[in-house]
Amino acid sequence: MELTAEIIGVGTELLLGKTVNTDARDISEGLSMLGINVYYHTVVGDNPSRLRLAVEIAKRRADIIITTGGLGPTCDDLTKQVLAECFGKKLVFHEKEAERIRSYFERSLHKTDITENNMSQAMLPEGCTIFHNEWGTAPGCAFRGDGKHVIMLPGPPRECVSMFNNCVVPYLKELSDSEIVSHNIRVFGLGESVVEDRLRDKMLELKNPTLAPYAKEGEVMLRVTAKASSVEEAEEMMKPVIDMVRETLGEFIYAVDEENLESVVLRILSEKNLTLSTAESCTGGLLQKRITDIPGASKVFPGGFVTYSDKAKIDFLGIPEELINNEGAVSQVVARAMAEAVKEKMSADFGIGITGVAGPDPDERGSEVGTVFIALAAFDGTYSREFHLGADRSRIRTMAVNHALDMLRRYLTGEKVV
Amino acid sequence: MELTAEIIGVGTELLLGKTVNTDARDISEGLSMLGINVYYHTVVGDNPSRLRLAVEIAKRRADIIITTGGLGPTCDDLTKQVLAECFGKKLVFHEKEAERIRSYFERSLHKTDITENNMSQAMLPEGCTIFHNEWGTAPGCAFRGDGKHVIMLPGPPRECVSMFNNCVVPYLKELSDSEIVSHNIRVFGLGESVVEDRLRDKMLELKNPTLAPYAKEGEVMLRVTAKASSVEEAEEMMKPVIDMVRETLGEFIYAVDEENLESVVLRILSEKNLTLSTAESCTGGLLQKRITDIPGASKVFPGGFVTYSDKAKIDFLGIPEELINNEGAVSQVVARAMAEAVKEKMSADFGIGITGVAGPDPDERGSEVGTVFIALAAFDGTYSREFHLGADRSRIRTMAVNHALDMLRRYLTGEKVV
Repeated sequence: MELTAEIIGVGTELLLGKTVNTDARDISEGLSMLGINVYYHTVVGDNPSRLRLAVEIAKRRADIIITTGGLGPTCDDLTKQVLAECFGKKLVFHEKEAERIRSYFERSLHKTDITENNMSQAMLPEGCTIFHNEWGTAPGCAFRGDGKHVIMLPGPPRECVSMFNNCVVPYLKELSDSEIVSHNIRVFGLGESVVEDRLRDKMLELKNPTLAPYAKEGEVMLRVTAKASSVEEAEEMMKPVIDMVRETLGEFIYAVDEENLESVVLRILSEKNLTLSTAESCTGGLLQKRITDIPGASKVFPGGFVTYSDKAKIDFLGIPEELINNEGAVSQVVARAMAEAVKEKMSADFGIGITGVAGPDPDERGSEVGTVFIALAAFDGTYSREFHLGADRSRIRTMAVNHALDMLRRYLTGEKVV
Repeated sequence: MELTAEIIGVGTELLLGKTVNTDARDISEGLSMLGINVYYHTVVGDNPSRLRLAVEIAKRRADIIITTGGLGPTCDDLTKQVLAECFGKKLVFHEKEAERIRSYFERSLHKTDITENNMSQAMLPEGCTIFHNEWGTAPGCAFRGDGKHVIMLPGPPRECVSMFNNCVVPYLKELSDSEIVSHNIRVFGLGESVVEDRLRDKMLELKNPTLAPYAKEGEVMLRVTAKASSVEEAEEMMKPVIDMVRETLGEFIYAVDEENLESVVLRILSEKNLTLSTAESCTGGLLQKRITDIPGASKVFPGGFVTYSDKAKIDFLGIPEELINNEGAVSQVVARAMAEAVKEKMSADFGIGITGVAGPDPDERGSEVGTVFIALAAFDGTYSREFHLGADRSRIRTMAVNHALDMLRRYLTGEKVV
């Protein structure tokens, strides 16, 4: 049976334009991977009568109604009351959930913070399936009513998306009689239009499995999705498609299913018992932040330097002052010296040095915004590259880190580094 | 007259979760500044019958209907046809608009690209106001029908938002007679429910200006909004409300309108010509990343260390090995030694040291996940605090950085630090 879903975002902040509805995007993406059609998104404010009207409309046009937001402890929060009412359910007190909320407060926040409002979060529709919130206080839940599936999730994106992936996806999988399996092929270093050009004919031709491109921050993801009666069968169907993509895009594919460049690099370093250290200038700690986002980073990453000023480069990395004076802090030789110095000082197997101009102003020597030099000091010498990464500060920093990680990824997998 | 608007986003890519609906956010923000209430957002795919149903619903609940998307040259694009039909209008060929489209192609693209589909973009509802598209090919337009204002805009955010600001805002200003102005009061260190408890009576009482809380990542934002016949009058009306909030929440308010803790701290440091350096363990560069997110950070931030391993703490910060052995790397004394060492080594006015357990596993000495020690080395000595920040790695790191920045913010503004 083909199921359809509607996502109702609840929150006046969305209607005032202070927040963008990323929850709807992320849930839609997840639903499409489950083979559930989304025909409408709706957003309403913190207003019971308008929410009620939106729910009545959704009941007429969807099998699954998913709400996001309006479950928090403030007086604006009304999603549960309205949804329970629309489906003729009572809200009942869940002692176990109350326990969880109490213990969340005791564990993690200001203990004195707990109020009666927080306890109202333990009021949930009778007979519902509770989704525990490991990422905040408001639990989510699902219930059946009037032949529909109703799912309520908290609004903050981190809570909403975590709960969707961890609780709602398994819940919805039970409703479907076929298995839908996906793999994400991650591509770095080719633009979306190039990827599409190379794969267009195949993408149009494929019906099951399907192949669809998604532009991500600075990279492209290709999703292969197959629908079959078993997971094994679906996997079998996807193999030739993945092989075809591999053949077409080659070394630009950095992973299948792994999350991002940093997780791939850290996994390989860890498998090979190798270590990495980094010296950052224009990226100001972003590379190290992304490395240490990954649990277990300490095994391969002893630490590094953020040498933002020239003086820090001289004092802590021992970059010769005349090199900076002659070549400029934003130069290929300085990037190389940074990579080599940090490798040596941290006794690491690899050193990465990044120096550039993230803007908004060009550097004193006139290097234009977006110019970034990245060096990788490795066993057999130092590799370095010059990049021009546009004009947006945040994008320059993100792309510089992506390129630095990709250079090391290429070195580790035996691809061409520069 | 109070006008209400509904925004209908048209595009299957939105329902597949490939794109996030930033158009709705940006248009909503613009409408709220015009004093126009937005009660609903709707998103539908490239499907005429579902779009027709969405428009029929919108006609019953809004005075102004704004569509985004579905005006491009591909065969999926159907917004104009459906909207014209819903309001009983004919589409007519606009020779002048056809001219513009031809010249756009001659100016900027491959001349051979122009197709009959492109010329269909010159078909517009009879009697409409045309919004020329300086940023792409599809023109937007507005017309009146069945007592409603109907506005159609292209989907690509750059085209949509530019056209909204340059064409639609002046068009709508003619319809409205009031100004809406907002201020955002940012609060750190109190939970949303505590803030709500302390301000509930006032919030319920206030009608214009209004006061509403928003939970942000680890903090609370309170938005004050006033509607008046002039900006000046609106500001005058908000003053006593902002004063009341200041009196109620005191030192927990870290900014009005400024974006985040790091921008406040950097502004004050910069004004006072002071510098900061940091040594991070469990936050792995996140603090330095957030500091250097702010343009101009180089004025106050020379650099810092990510000393993830014990060895790095010993080698680069000179933390005595026996201190780490006796007290553990995750300890108040080590945090203090890190802060003091980095302050001295970087010749900075302030040093921040952060050491803790971000998880997922406890450290070897059994410190539980979420335990973080933060120290601030300042002019008159070193301040330090122990935190317990829950169990989620990413939240622990974010909150540790927030607390570190807040300790410095408090020091700089003369508030109690620990």
